[in-house]
Amino acid sequence: MLHRERVQKLQVLAQRENIAAFVIVPSASLVYLAGFNMGLSERPAFLLVPQRGDVSFLCPAFEAERVRRESGVEHLVTYTDEVGPILPFTQALSDWQLGKRVAFEYRACRLLEYDVMAQALKAQIEMVDARPYLAELRMAKDSTEQSYLQTAADAADLMVAAIERKLAPGVTERQLQDAAVQALVEAYPQAGVAFISIASGERTALPHAGTTDRPLEAGDLVWVDLGASINGYVSDITRTFALGPLDPDLERAYDLVLAANQAACQAARPGVTAEHLDEVARAVIREGGFGEQFTHRTGHGIGLEVHEEPYIVAGNKLVLQPGYAFTIEPGIYLPGKGGIRIEDNVVITEKGAKVLTSYQRDLRHS
Amino acid sequence: MLHRERVQKLQVLAQRENIAAFVIVPSASLVYLAGFNMGLSERPAFLLVPQRGDVSFLCPAFEAERVRRESGVEHLVTYTDEVGPILPFTQALSDWQLGKRVAFEYRACRLLEYDVMAQALKAQIEMVDARPYLAELRMAKDSTEQSYLQTAADAADLMVAAIERKLAPGVTERQLQDAAVQALVEAYPQAGVAFISIASGERTALPHAGTTDRPLEAGDLVWVDLGASINGYVSDITRTFALGPLDPDLERAYDLVLAANQAACQAARPGVTAEHLDEVARAVIREGGFGEQFTHRTGHGIGLEVHEEPYIVAGNKLVLQPGYAFTIEPGIYLPGKGGIRIEDNVVITEKGAKVLTSYQRDLRHS
Repeated sequence: MLHRERVQKLQVLAQRENIAAFVIVPSASLVYLAGFNMGLSERPAFLLVPQRGDVSFLCPAFEAERVRRESGVEHLVTYTDEVGPILPFTQALSDWQLGKRVAFEYRACRLLEYDVMAQALKAQIEMVDARPYLAELRMAKDSTEQSYLQTAADAADLMVAAIERKLAPGVTERQLQDAAVQALVEAYPQAGVAFISIASGERTALPHAGTTDRPLEAGDLVWVDLGASINGYVSDITRTFALGPLDPDLERAYDLVLAANQAACQAARPGVTAEHLDEVARAVIREGGFGEQFTHRTGHGIGLEVHEEPYIVAGNKLVLQPGYAFTIEPGIYLPGKGGIRIEDNVVITEKGAKVLTSYQRDLRHS
Repeated sequence: MLHRERVQKLQVLAQRENIAAFVIVPSASLVYLAGFNMGLSERPAFLLVPQRGDVSFLCPAFEAERVRRESGVEHLVTYTDEVGPILPFTQALSDWQLGKRVAFEYRACRLLEYDVMAQALKAQIEMVDARPYLAELRMAKDSTEQSYLQTAADAADLMVAAIERKLAPGVTERQLQDAAVQALVEAYPQAGVAFISIASGERTALPHAGTTDRPLEAGDLVWVDLGASINGYVSDITRTFALGPLDPDLERAYDLVLAANQAACQAARPGVTAEHLDEVARAVIREGGFGEQFTHRTGHGIGLEVHEEPYIVAGNKLVLQPGYAFTIEPGIYLPGKGGIRIEDNVVITEKGAKVLTSYQRDLRHS
């Protein structure tokens, strides 16, 4: 159902920023505001949050009953496949007297929805990116949201445990993945797999490698990067394992990545900037001589999306505040040899930060 | 790997339409052209297909190795989290001398990617919807694509069979869904579930209802709407079952929906328009007195997306041609009572149409 207090906060931001309306397409932000989601399809649908007054929903006619039940939004503008959305929406907009400064979430809104709005308003819309305003609301997780994040983190720990138990030469990456999914379904029937990637051997040097049918070999590095979702809220953990003694460079890299992870987790607290946390982790790795091989930012926010604000990256001067939840995930990638990443989830508290993921981090040779 | 002959066909369309370049974001069209996909994230990535010459790919630096391996595209422009995409892309574009008429797929491209292009080109871009041109290529499935669609349809038939075997009062919608997923995984380990929705009782009157934990009751209507995917190609089948004798209105509606389905399947052949097929199905239901309760179009294309061109809908004068693949899915929805839909997948052949899904369609009381 519609979260009326969240909608009101967004309207306050609209008034402050002179934004006529927020156009919210099916996305995590729709879940955040309206308490339900729709799949993106060729039929546009959106929640319209004007600066003042009631929200409305534009959707295909045959979805109207479901939207009404799941959102509680009373003002629905619907369209049939034959007529299409532009005419009904143009008529509705003529009552609303919207200004031309309209906010769309650039990373969620497609040109499809933009085009419908632009045609319906019969004018050049001044586009504003809605994301910073939605991020301002969504970054600070309330206690309910934090409890979902904790459960999602517990579920991720359990998935990693299921994988470590199965690590052995001859077992394929896919079999490890299946074991993790099965463990999750048994222990958390209401949870979902947010994503899962397992890489082994030389492919661990690709930070976003995906699971294959490759069988593990003695001496391999293996990393598992996965997340569970509970009520839409996700976790995101990475652990790296070794099947036997490692190349000395990789062993040294492991120690540095772990030290960087721990330094950043300990530095996380209210009042610190996102770029400072990135630098805390990066300095450890740079001083160890692998600065060039830490090729990505230190972390990203988690919540209704696996990647959301705050981004823990150079240049981001955002000051962390209680309730902000994000990953700390330094990594070192040596092309042709292998890569290491250790990723945890933290939430800023009044005095410091709580680490939600707790699976053990020491290098163990399976 | 990049499908060079598909790219060349798109370039011929670009020349014909005076389009400077196609900007392809992570999507089914990227899979169609480049043979691989990336997840959409806050980091934009796209394949740029200029009117003439080589394609290039813009992506985050840490994805470059994977993109090179999976696509074979040689010209990569990369960016780091610190610098962002706009500066590197602006530099690259300065070599390319693109015109301002640039095609984006409105239903796939986000304002995020559009904004990057617009800033990099430092000019007002004239946006063109790339979709009609990509649809022109993608609608006519070649023999390999048709074989994937047939396998996906076979897998969907098998999932429906697993559900029908389990139909009984007390069994929940979720348990039916689990049975279908399990049957798929056992019989087609390389397949995926494209989507699955099961509705029972009065909620069958909502065309897009989702699976819940509701236990079936004697006398229920139950519909299952599901699809499997094989190598990215999907199926989409719906069957409606009755747990005991039905209300006479619903029984009559079932007969009409089945007759409409069969009439449209038989009318499908090269040279017929999409709107004609819609009218063939709609006339059967309208003449039976339920025209107002058939609230959606008769069908949609299937391929790398569950909904794609051609749309079988009033007003669509597109002439069907060999290789076009789509659904035929008339339905009748009686609020408060229940709904019925029977959906099959067909592909146009030289002389008629082949029905890919074959699970039996007669009304049976379980």
